[in-house]
Parts: sequence; C-alpha cells; structure tokens
Amino acid sequence: MRLPKPLEHLIEQLQKLPGIGPKNAQRLGLFLLRLPQGEAEAIAEAILEAKKRIFPCPQCGNLTDTSPCSICTDETRRQDLLCVTEDASDVLAMERAGYRGQYVVLEKALNLMDIQDWANMDLSRLKSRLKSGKVQEVILALNPDIDGEVISRMIAAQAMQFGVRVTRLAHGLPVGGDIQFADEITLRQALEGRKEILT
Amino acid sequence: MRLPKPLEHLIEQLQKLPGIGPKNAQRLGLFLLRLPQGEAEAIAEAILEAKKRIFPCPQCGNLTDTSPCSICTDETRRQDLLCVTEDASDVLAMERAGYRGQYVVLEKALNLMDIQDWANMDLSRLKSRLKSGKVQEVILALNPDIDGEVISRMIAAQAMQFGVRVTRLAHGLPVGGDIQFADEITLRQALEGRKEILT
Repeated sequence: MRLPKPLEHLIEQLQKLPGIGPKNAQRLGLFLLRLPQGEAEAIAEAILEAKKRIFPCPQCGNLTDTSPCSICTDETRRQDLLCVTEDASDVLAMERAGYRGQYVVLEKALNLMDIQDWANMDLSRLKSRLKSGKVQEVILALNPDIDGEVISRMIAAQAMQFGVRVTRLAHGLPVGGDIQFADEITLRQALEGRKEILT
Repeated sequence: MRLPKPLEHLIEQLQKLPGIGPKNAQRLGLFLLRLPQGEAEAIAEAILEAKKRIFPCPQCGNLTDTSPCSICTDETRRQDLLCVTEDASDVLAMERAGYRGQYVVLEKALNLMDIQDWANMDLSRLKSRLKSGKVQEVILALNPDIDGEVISRMIAAQAMQFGVRVTRLAHGLPVGGDIQFADEITLRQALEGRKEILT
C-alpha cells in the first residue's frame, strides 16, 4: 500500500522536527488530518507567522518581535550584569531561574572541529556591550562541554581587556540528584566548590 | 520576560499535538525559528496541503487522495477478505503485517459512556460491502479493550445475517514478550489459544 502523496509528504516534513522519528511523524500526521480544518490551519499559520515576525534582537541576539527586545529596553533590569548564552532557549532557562540582567546570545552551535565556525563567530554584540562601559560582570552561562569551555575562555579573554569581572555558572550536584549516580568529574567539582554552612 | 507574541502563539499551537507538552512545544518552536525560511514554510504548507487533499475513501473510509482509494481499486488484493479497523493508523499496521485484503475503517473513537456515539456510528460502508456478496470473511482488527469488544459483537451480529464468517485477531503473548511480565488475562488467553507444534 502506498500512502496518499500529500500525507507521505507531510510525514516527511514532520520528521525534520527534533525528536520526531518516523513512527511519531506518522502519528502526528494522522492526528493533523483528523483535526477540524480550522485548527490544523491555525498550527500551520502560527509557524508561518512566527517565522515572519520574529528575528534576533540587534542588541543582544535574543529572539524578539520588537527592536530592540523587551529585555534590552527594560529599565528595571540590572545593566551591570551581562549573561552570555549559546541560544535563546538558554535565555528562557536563565529567566526561569530568576536572573534579571542583560544578555548576549551567541546563537551559534559551534563545532570545534570546524575552523570556519571559529572564524565566523560573531562577537560584535558582546564587544559593543563591553565598550558601553556599563557592564561590571560577565556571567558565562555556556553548556559545560568542551565547546562551551573553549568559548568561555575566548570570551573571558575579551572581557578582561575591558577590566570586567568574568564568572561562570557553578558546577556541582544537581538539586535532587543522588551522589551515587553523579559522574566523577561533577562530583570532583562539587567537592572543590564546597560551601561552608552558615548557621 | 514575556516571549514575543508570535512565538508564544506558535508554542500554544504546537501543544495541541499529541504527546507534545509545554517544554517540548517550546523546543520545537525555537527549532522552527532557527530553520531556514523555506524549510519552515515547507512544513506549514505540507499541513495545509494534506488537509486540503486528503479525505476518507467513500468505499472503505481509509485516508486517501483518490476516490476510491488505492486499496479499493487494487485488483490484485483479495476481494473475499474484509478487515474492520478503528482508524487509518490501524490500516498501516495491518499492511505492515502483510494483510492484502479489503478494509472498512470505522474512523470513530467510540466512547461507551456516550450513547450519542452509538447512535451515530456509521456502519453503512460495512453493510454495502456485505451486500455486494463478495465478502467471505470479516476479520475484526479492533483494539482489545472494552469498546473494541462491544463494537466487535455489534459487527459480528451484522455480518452473520449475511452468512459471512467472522474472525478476530488472536490474543496472546506479544512476540519477544516475557511471560513473567504478561498480565493474567493475556496469559490466560495465550493458554486457551495454545497451538500444537507441528514437526
């Protein structure tokens, strides 16, 4: 049996989404076909609309539909803290964690093996923030992998030229995590970063 | 921080999909925004296109873009076997399992508690197939739950009026399944349906 062409095409397209394999794409495709006409259209149009209206903020690189974005224009946020993240979803995570300073979003998944990526890495937003003279501390919120480590050092070198303090998120045990299941590097870093309990 | 409106709307829309929760919807939304313009549009258009061009086959109820569908018009398939399924994804599963007869797709998730569902259940496709006189055997491929059980009996009563043999898929241990993890009803049915090993 061959599937109807438009359904086959839909399933192919849905497989482009992250974490959606062939079986799941088929399930989603059949689900979309069962939806009332208007509702399926609303999903398709939300994709088109978001693609049309959302762009990276020229100041910080975070996703926005206004220029500059709502974070850059928020006067109540601290102007002396600058958090560097790899992409927009990390910004959402930092916001949920209660951070209320400025951001620079690199929005570039770097591949250490690809020298082109390095040459093209755009640090202009970071530099112009540092030049503004308002920033007192750069907080590196890059993923704790080798790429993140290397980018962190590059950025730290830049920031130090401006006499700015550079920090990074602490490594350690995740809250609720079990010590017996922690990998040894995490545990070693949790030990090195141990804190005194103040009574 | 508020998300840009079009992104918020996209995430809301994506949450309508089955198995996509808020976190996953956010991840998919951000992924779609990072895709090149053309690729995101291709996904949206595949949804619109499929909704426009695919409909239930008037003869069997399976999803199709031709009328009647490619299964109903395939002369090489057995005309004397009629398989009754609940929806189009069950047809795909039966095809993968090697079944090469005809289908009737009920395409209606019945809810035993809702008497309206019963009144509205459309058995016209099934009846017109039975009236054609070609069908020798009706194979019930309905899910082994209470609803499936009740529908099976209703359909069996219909088919028997036409003097047609009615069978259903065997219950038993799934292939590769472990006996110690089988529930007792499955195991009892596997025992009742035990087969002689022929050497």
